[in-house]
Amino acid sequence: MSNLFVRTLRENPADAEVPSHQLLVRAGYIRRAAPGIYSWLPLGLRVLRKVEKIVRDEMNATGAQEVHFPALLPREPYEASNRWTEYGPNLFRLKDRRDNDYLLAPTHEEMFTLLVKDLYSSYKDLPLNIYQIQTKYRDEARPRAGLIRGREFIMKDAYSFDVHDEGLEVQYQTMRDAYEKIFNRLGLDYVICSAMSGAMGGSRSEEFLHPTEIGEDTFVRAASGYAANAEAVTTPQADDVDFSDVPAAQVYETPESTTIEALVDVANTLLPRDTPWEAKDTLKNVVLVLSHPGGEKEVIVVALPGDRDVDLKRVEAALAPAEVDVAGPEDLKNHPELVPGYIGPEVIGPNSPNRVVDEDGNISGSVRFLVDPRIARGSAWVTGANENEKHVFNLVYGRDFEADGTIEAVEIREGDPAPDGSGPLELARGIEVGHIFQLGRKYAEALDLKVLDENGKSQVVTMGSYGLGVTRVLAALAEKNHDDLGLAWPINIAPAHIHVLATGKGAEIFETAESLSGELTKAGFEVIYDDRAKVSAGVKFKDYELLGVPYGLVVGRGLAEGKVEIRNRVTGESTEVPVEEAVERVAELLKTDLEAHGE
Amino acid sequence: MSNLFVRTLRENPADAEVPSHQLLVRAGYIRRAAPGIYSWLPLGLRVLRKVEKIVRDEMNATGAQEVHFPALLPREPYEASNRWTEYGPNLFRLKDRRDNDYLLAPTHEEMFTLLVKDLYSSYKDLPLNIYQIQTKYRDEARPRAGLIRGREFIMKDAYSFDVHDEGLEVQYQTMRDAYEKIFNRLGLDYVICSAMSGAMGGSRSEEFLHPTEIGEDTFVRAASGYAANAEAVTTPQADDVDFSDVPAAQVYETPESTTIEALVDVANTLLPRDTPWEAKDTLKNVVLVLSHPGGEKEVIVVALPGDRDVDLKRVEAALAPAEVDVAGPEDLKNHPELVPGYIGPEVIGPNSPNRVVDEDGNISGSVRFLVDPRIARGSAWVTGANENEKHVFNLVYGRDFEADGTIEAVEIREGDPAPDGSGPLELARGIEVGHIFQLGRKYAEALDLKVLDENGKSQVVTMGSYGLGVTRVLAALAEKNHDDLGLAWPINIAPAHIHVLATGKGAEIFETAESLSGELTKAGFEVIYDDRAKVSAGVKFKDYELLGVPYGLVVGRGLAEGKVEIRNRVTGESTEVPVEEAVERVAELLKTDLEAHGE
Repeated sequence: MSNLFVRTLRENPADAEVPSHQLLVRAGYIRRAAPGIYSWLPLGLRVLRKVEKIVRDEMNATGAQEVHFPALLPREPYEASNRWTEYGPNLFRLKDRRDNDYLLAPTHEEMFTLLVKDLYSSYKDLPLNIYQIQTKYRDEARPRAGLIRGREFIMKDAYSFDVHDEGLEVQYQTMRDAYEKIFNRLGLDYVICSAMSGAMGGSRSEEFLHPTEIGEDTFVRAASGYAANAEAVTTPQADDVDFSDVPAAQVYETPESTTIEALVDVANTLLPRDTPWEAKDTLKNVVLVLSHPGGEKEVIVVALPGDRDVDLKRVEAALAPAEVDVAGPEDLKNHPELVPGYIGPEVIGPNSPNRVVDEDGNISGSVRFLVDPRIARGSAWVTGANENEKHVFNLVYGRDFEADGTIEAVEIREGDPAPDGSGPLELARGIEVGHIFQLGRKYAEALDLKVLDENGKSQVVTMGSYGLGVTRVLAALAEKNHDDLGLAWPINIAPAHIHVLATGKGAEIFETAESLSGELTKAGFEVIYDDRAKVSAGVKFKDYELLGVPYGLVVGRGLAEGKVEIRNRVTGESTEVPVEEAVERVAELLKTDLEAHGE
Repeated sequence: MSNLFVRTLRENPADAEVPSHQLLVRAGYIRRAAPGIYSWLPLGLRVLRKVEKIVRDEMNATGAQEVHFPALLPREPYEASNRWTEYGPNLFRLKDRRDNDYLLAPTHEEMFTLLVKDLYSSYKDLPLNIYQIQTKYRDEARPRAGLIRGREFIMKDAYSFDVHDEGLEVQYQTMRDAYEKIFNRLGLDYVICSAMSGAMGGSRSEEFLHPTEIGEDTFVRAASGYAANAEAVTTPQADDVDFSDVPAAQVYETPESTTIEALVDVANTLLPRDTPWEAKDTLKNVVLVLSHPGGEKEVIVVALPGDRDVDLKRVEAALAPAEVDVAGPEDLKNHPELVPGYIGPEVIGPNSPNRVVDEDGNISGSVRFLVDPRIARGSAWVTGANENEKHVFNLVYGRDFEADGTIEAVEIREGDPAPDGSGPLELARGIEVGHIFQLGRKYAEALDLKVLDENGKSQVVTMGSYGLGVTRVLAALAEKNHDDLGLAWPINIAPAHIHVLATGKGAEIFETAESLSGELTKAGFEVIYDDRAKVSAGVKFKDYELLGVPYGLVVGRGLAEGKVEIRNRVTGESTEVPVEEAVERVAELLKTDLEAHGE
């Protein structure tokens, strides 16, 4: 400890909001170099390498082969796949001295595809799975939570190549199993969720989420075992409703009713009925603005039942790769037909007198109007009348208004029905630690990766891509393995196996502690020895607790009676043992624990 | 081999000029992703990791501690050290989505300095040496020779921190010794050369050069053991010469004499003398254009004896951080006083009637004029007269013309005197594989890194920086360890210890080869087994020779007589052994070789 390049902090750094970030900085594992960009100190690097090793072991066990690509890449392959544009502002772009375009790779589908194209040409070369553990770059809009959402981070990314779909299915399952083994070895609980593929493309994808309150992903679970990222939850289209009894739509004066709550009050005063009007009887029309990757902005209106809110992340997933935000006054300027607080579907969308549809089906003149699948055709609504302080009653979908389509825009709530019909959904939050994709032929087609099949026919290869956030996993492990005092690592990823503390003043204490440290090191264990002469026992204990090595060996006052103390960092248990038995007892403890962790 | 992600090539790639580049591509170790940017295939990555491990071992043995910094860094620290500007076009610069400036780090002095400042505050924390093995970026003007001069490459960079100069001296020597151990373990011969510090700054630096014809660095050696990079060779200022007998300078018509050769002919015709005129009697005035890091261009004139040529790399080292090129017609446009082919020092430099020197000593109105130290004050020259087709004779330095200073501009030649007076210099070429610097206080001052010393006084820390080009070392190893057939690695860095070849058609051959491979693997050796069924023995031998694993075990026709063959890739030796002794014999061979390499 007197030489180790570390400095522990008693206070949480001002910019750190989650425990993993706070503790990794306080315990001297990482330091911030720029927003979302971190330096690794010796202790942090040791843990990182152990996590990497477990990932590498399990990847190699599947027969996957490790390679290593550059992080600085030319534009052209990403142009071919369209991701140069689709990634929008999330991509770090730069020019070299000859004014050529480069990027810092956020993920490497294109380069792996091109390398396989360069080397292979026959079905006999496949199946293939190649992977790397490498630094990735994403210019996140909101880097947060330390290592959880960074701009420079380490990922394991693997890519599989097959001639036939069945082969992809097999490789996907192999990677899925390997991920389960990795997270089990790391002791990190996870839920495998159906997910959206986003900018990656492809037909099927699943996320490995580590459930935790501080996670930024919301996911759902049902009794059947169904689990999905909130973005990927599908809502069945509501069945058509008979509207033959619904009277004609009628407009009423509804002063000062720009909120759903005010509108419900007005409705109950204006047109009282047996079942009082509720928020769910009203139709909420939300104006959103999309930023397309090319930079164009588009205003759209989304309709949903008045008792529901819009979930922007779900909308964004549905409209990828556009970024989505709630429209502001600036965005509404060119849309006088959208009367704030009184927007109604009657004269917007396909019904708009301004609507123009060209030969290719492109819409102009009026904004796109999308409805939530909960809006049944034939259902009647109270909603805005496109005039200040007026609402319309009994406006029937399919009779009085039309939409351009449906969209998953509504936030999922605890108790919503599971898409598989297995009952109510349970909601939770988690950190995305892995994401596996069946990409299919998107990249192989874009970059012309073909091989000859068994019949000598040229076939586009089908691909999978398998990401695992190594630095994010480390943060998730810190979230899981800590208490109020500090970190508390499992032995297989801890920066050392045992932390020896010399607490006290006599030379004998230091000599004994040093000799025990030496013997344990010689026995093959990783030891941190706190040899600091002018540091109090209190500070040494606090540092031991903060650093989180799973076992402590305290050489202190008890030495006068020939005793030293073995501590368990996680349970807090403490055992006094005779000094001459210390090495043997500690060695047994460590060996047992290491073996239990498969080391 | 049937599964390994590799494809060997029989032809050299078109863009590869040096053997390491040709063979590493042909043997499937690396592939080009962009100019100066390479992807690592499984075989290449294995060798890379072994080189890294040796470097890491020896760094750790010195007590240096491994850390890891980001590659993507904010501008500010590099602004403080002035390197944001000084690196000129060699730095990859980019902006993030908030329009903040970032760079891809070419080396990390600033960040290490800031991290130590963040953590440490007392002399008691020092000495410290921290290092990383990390990806670096330089936007080289001319990336070349594959891994030898790349734009994305791996470096080990270490930084030492001390309160006092003596401490820096000790740490510098420790690193120097560690580098010697590293290169010895790698079997890479090297010469330690005095070097220029360039953009790095600092007081003393030495380069580790691996001597090879294809190296891009020229270095010199003398019998005394003196060795220096050509840029760092110093030329003593020639002693003053008595010019009292030299007649007044006189201008002559010298038609068509724009070359030194023509001028010498003209002189011998015009003014014949006992000792005929030679090139060394003429003064050559070379117009150069400097590109300063800020983008400004400056034209200068450099004078040297007519029998010598300018070495642009030496000029560049002398005028760092400016880039230097020979001036073209465009650069001369604004300088009518510089008459191409007839430039003379009489009316340029300090003698120019246009010369203006402001209060701060800044020169304008006429170009800077620098002379080689071989030009003695008092010496007389034949040189241009600043008029078309005219030269001047007996122009005396100090009497008829003046200079703004001296510069090391002349190319060093075999046989030039060593600066230490130990006799003639020998010239050779090499690859720079390491560079160690005594930086002193440049970075600590720029970034305000101070600690309290023994007397409680605040002291600026003194630093060293120690670079080792890991990917370049690998290329140098490939240069050293190859023959006409392919690579031929030493066992401690080879991608495997033994290459088992099944050559022949019977099932028994393949079964035996597979079983021997399995046994050798089980014994802890790294095995490549060529199990390809439809590949001829000829192709298998060619691939074995190309890949460069140090030993081969051939299971082929000899198996009918119970024999297999052990081959030595380097010597070409081949030994037949009974199949039942094969594992034991191979194991002994490998063990002996590994031990000899300190493994």
